[in-house]
Amino acid sequence: MDQAENVVRFRVRYGETDQMGTFANARALEWFECGRTELLRQIGVPYAGMEARGVFLPVVEAHLAYVGRARYDDQLEMTTTVAMSGKARVRCDVSIVHADSGAGVVHGHTVHAFVDAAGRPIRPPTWFVKVVQSNGSGG
Amino acid sequence: MDQAENVVRFRVRYGETDQMGTFANARALEWFECGRTELLRQIGVPYAGMEARGVFLPVVEAHLAYVGRARYDDQLEMTTTVAMSGKARVRCDVSIVHADSGAGVVHGHTVHAFVDAAGRPIRPPTWFVKVVQSNGSGG
Amino acid sequence: MDQAENVVRFRVRYGETDQMGTFANARALEWFECGRTELLRQIGVPYAGMEARGVFLPVVEAHLAYVGRARYDDQLEMTTTVAMSGKARVRCDVSIVHADSGAGVVHGHTVHAFVDAAGRPIRPPTWFVKVVQSNGSGG
Amino acid sequence: MDQAENVVRFRVRYGETDQMGTFANARALEWFECGRTELLRQIGVPYAGMEARGVFLPVVEAHLAYVGRARYDDQLEMTTTVAMSGKARVRCDVSIVHADSGAGVVHGHTVHAFVDAAGRPIRPPTWFVKVVQSNGSGG
Repeated sequence: MDQAENVVRFRVRYGETDQMGTFANARALEWFECGRTELLRQIGVPYAGMEARGVFLPVVEAHLAYVGRARYDDQLEMTTTVAMSGKARVRCDVSIVHADSGAGVVHGHTVHAFVDAAGRPIRPPTWFVKVVQSNGSGG
Repeated sequence: MDQAENVVRFRVRYGETDQMGTFANARALEWFECGRTELLRQIGVPYAGMEARGVFLPVVEAHLAYVGRARYDDQLEMTTTVAMSGKARVRCDVSIVHADSGAGVVHGHTVHAFVDAAGRPIRPPTWFVKVVQSNGSGG
Repeated sequence: MDQAENVVRFRVRYGETDQMGTFANARALEWFECGRTELLRQIGVPYAGMEARGVFLPVVEAHLAYVGRARYDDQLEMTTTVAMSGKARVRCDVSIVHADSGAGVVHGHTVHAFVDAAGRPIRPPTWFVKVVQSNGSGG
Repeated sequence: MDQAENVVRFRVRYGETDQMGTFANARALEWFECGRTELLRQIGVPYAGMEARGVFLPVVEAHLAYVGRARYDDQLEMTTTVAMSGKARVRCDVSIVHADSGAGVVHGHTVHAFVDAAGRPIRPPTWFVKVVQSNGSGG
């Protein structure tokens, strides 16, 4: 209910368009990444600091629904939320819409594992799980 | 059963890695795109020619499962298949593995709509559907 | 002397890093593009509007000096200026530094031709040249 | 005179185009990177192995001249050569043309420093300089 959400605005870069005149579909995954970065900073566990502590969150699954076009220089608004997914995964849900009209552009989610610098699975750190849970369900 | 499949080999570019030492996850969607390009060329309906005829296939849905790492300069093998998905969509399934060991890297699929140059939905052209169906089930 | 300059701040995206731990060198050219977009908007000739009027500014030359590292999530500050270069070219100079320390990251410039939608050279529009000149030398 | 050169062919990816209908200018730097990778492999000092030995070659300078368009799926041919540039730098020259017509697309070069994994300048390894020199002038 009181799930923390991060909202950022950004513009479609020229180099992010393709010849169809809308953004290249792969870029949405890069935008999702920016949303996660800002959300984790907002709830107090900046990702750069997590990697410095040896906790990496590679994407193990991604799903994207492209629901509308967005052109060069269009201003978009991205909303990201986070929640644990079982005991060993964390999930981010993302919605990108046009900032002015609210018309949908991309919706999707990514699921992340917890690994160390060598890529070996690790248990989610308690300090991380607590922060996510307190920002994910009425905390 | 006799579904046409395209197999291409490529190497992970340096600029495709990120600081985790594996490929940036967004790049997989760009690789999928290369797989589709080669598959459509192989079955006789090159995508550049389709756009020239006013038929565009934007991605409306994508799903990716990242199952293993791949580093700079690793040689990967991508297998792509295509099939109609209902009457108005086409779907490509993709599997990317290490060329030497066969170890999995990314599996996924994309679903595409049929639109004209202005982005308006169009009926899938008969010539396209025929080619896909004859390459998708015992043709 | 009173040359218009645009200053924007942005953070290095995760997907913009490579395995060297700094940003992938090609991304600097994409950042330059963002700087131009903001500069042209600031001086009243937004680039999206220019293309809508049939004036395209493809890059014909680029030079980059990489003078320092920048890591994931580092906040950078990009300063862009614009000037005519001869009668048929426009040039943008760009400097990217760390927002906190001012330490240099990339310096460079791009030179642009004026072409129409079909890629044919055109004469620089008077309305554009006037704006650039009045923002380029004490205007 | 007998300078080693590497020639590779590749196609412009869909995601590499932008709304101008040609390739996004930043991608040329990524292509240059692929050319270097193949050239170093060809002369016996694969770059992945160099990094494994603690020798990194970050780009410190890049210059690009965009001389012609290239569209989605066009087949391009990239020729790369390498030479020492003074005692502490190595330089790669690159020429990208259309594979069929030979019409120019991008010409340019990159200059590289020698650094260790921490980014500190190191002396160019003798084994590397020898290989480059013997492939750069009548070897």
